[in-house]
Amino acid sequence: MIMTVGELGESGVLARVLARLGHAENALVGPGDDCAVLRSAGDTVVTSDTMIEGPDFRTAWHDGRDLGWKLAATNLSDVAAMGARPTALTVSLAVPRDTPVAFLEAIASGLDAACRALAPGCGVVGGDLGTAPVVMAAVTALGDLEGREPVLRTGARPGELLAYAGDLGLAGLGLSLLFERAADEDGRALAGAVDALHAEFGVPLAAQLAPESPVRLGVAASIAGASAMMDVSDSLSIDAARMAEASGVSIELDSSLLAEGFSEQRGVHVPVSAMLTGGEDHGLLAAFPAGAALPAGFRVIGRVAESGASEATRLRLDGAPLEPSGWDPYTVRWPGS
Amino acid sequence: MIMTVGELGESGVLARVLARLGHAENALVGPGDDCAVLRSAGDTVVTSDTMIEGPDFRTAWHDGRDLGWKLAATNLSDVAAMGARPTALTVSLAVPRDTPVAFLEAIASGLDAACRALAPGCGVVGGDLGTAPVVMAAVTALGDLEGREPVLRTGARPGELLAYAGDLGLAGLGLSLLFERAADEDGRALAGAVDALHAEFGVPLAAQLAPESPVRLGVAASIAGASAMMDVSDSLSIDAARMAEASGVSIELDSSLLAEGFSEQRGVHVPVSAMLTGGEDHGLLAAFPAGAALPAGFRVIGRVAESGASEATRLRLDGAPLEPSGWDPYTVRWPGS
Repeated sequence: MIMTVGELGESGVLARVLARLGHAENALVGPGDDCAVLRSAGDTVVTSDTMIEGPDFRTAWHDGRDLGWKLAATNLSDVAAMGARPTALTVSLAVPRDTPVAFLEAIASGLDAACRALAPGCGVVGGDLGTAPVVMAAVTALGDLEGREPVLRTGARPGELLAYAGDLGLAGLGLSLLFERAADEDGRALAGAVDALHAEFGVPLAAQLAPESPVRLGVAASIAGASAMMDVSDSLSIDAARMAEASGVSIELDSSLLAEGFSEQRGVHVPVSAMLTGGEDHGLLAAFPAGAALPAGFRVIGRVAESGASEATRLRLDGAPLEPSGWDPYTVRWPGS
Repeated sequence: MIMTVGELGESGVLARVLARLGHAENALVGPGDDCAVLRSAGDTVVTSDTMIEGPDFRTAWHDGRDLGWKLAATNLSDVAAMGARPTALTVSLAVPRDTPVAFLEAIASGLDAACRALAPGCGVVGGDLGTAPVVMAAVTALGDLEGREPVLRTGARPGELLAYAGDLGLAGLGLSLLFERAADEDGRALAGAVDALHAEFGVPLAAQLAPESPVRLGVAASIAGASAMMDVSDSLSIDAARMAEASGVSIELDSSLLAEGFSEQRGVHVPVSAMLTGGEDHGLLAAFPAGAALPAGFRVIGRVAESGASEATRLRLDGAPLEPSGWDPYTVRWPGS
């Protein structure tokens, strides 16, 4: 018999979830009071990101553990992108009453595993549980700048190098595979087909379902002198254009550098077009002064130039204007949603 | 013509929402980068709370401004309950595509108004927007302990006074009125009846829809020496029992003190039974050493005693065991939900 959250009740579910979560090093007070209490060495960074069943994930594709991992990774990478060390997460979960308790336990395990792997010392310090017609998870991540200045997206300067660390385009390829091979003709997710896909396309699927954001490289980039940094969540072209606009510069991407650095990722061939438009990799895009020693993991993919004469020339690929493309959750209607 | 979020798109909606939000004093970096950056004088407290259309609110009863106010107030009161000064909120909103943009603008106005009224200097520093089948709002609040120790729920000691500040039972009365007079026989919310109810029962309705949590009294209670403090969200009886259990003591409530302090609230008569079982007032329950000078706004409602021999005697009313009662979102099935 499968125990559901409606049968077990809030306090029972909470106890099961908390049992899966490790301690956050900076937490003076963890879950269980009105608030958690955190001690920081420097200024605090904070970010929130939500995943909702339908537009953001399908339970037919995402098991609980991968979902928990992705929830943590997407937020940790935003903290990393400021040059901060992640210290704590809060997690708000709302699920239908008939959801198995084991699904929430798996989410907790995934959150914990991602913290341990990507940001040791960080842990879940609070949150809440509720009911909703679909699975909804809102995560807030906090980080400690430890006395360093934050690395903003506004700091890129002409003459600097543009570099990237992490998967690039793999998560987008994973999503394409899921729609092509694990969905019906109306775009509805089919659970049965996912196991076979994992066997054949494990790398892009894992990149999509449980991304390995290079969280530790955020602090490393800051120490190495990064002048601007961003988490790439929507797509390289969209996020590079955002950095160019925020910094008042233009950005020149170089397809041969992209191909050299990222054509072959863990045995998978990734075309440059997929690198430019695929979203959800949660890698780090950073600008470094020309003489900087880049931390291992960053590869140069272009350079920062003077602001173009118009919006259309903010972003260029091999010298030609490049239209940023990716997706907007409000305007892209997913099939079946 | 009514503009919907699906028509306007994410960046357009975001710009409209941000225009309604004031600055957070402690924010070195506000919305627009991967994270906000906050400077604190002391340790940071953090809490998250979610409201979902259906179990937590009905749009037929709650307009956007009241919803935004309540989202802020419920989280600010958790920060206050630690003895901290609220500094920042992050807000994750997900709504159906056909939601009018004006509804999100009203939520933003309500968030901003609650910050200005209840916690001046606090503001929204980040968040995200998405789509969902019903309105979902997840808020995280941060606060600054400014060098003080946090006031936990574990610190109540035998011989101390138990005191309460804020509305008590009014929000529960407001909810009962809504179900009795602004819902059909299946419990479905009816928008049309709410205006008339506001005219006749403005105080309990406002307490339910846009609670005035005594946020400033959290810091005052800490400075006055409160040994334990909690936000009362589920009900006085449930939350007092939680404090008793966490502190390893028993709590004796006194019905004559409750009646003396809270029978008459802004012209509304509130029976003691409603004070004990009504939820969502978001007042502050605190224990103070016997000689402490209570901050104006707190009224003594009982005392802290030695731990009882059994679970059943942790909470007493006039010397007799009191069964805590209120609600559990997972087990109470709302009509129409």
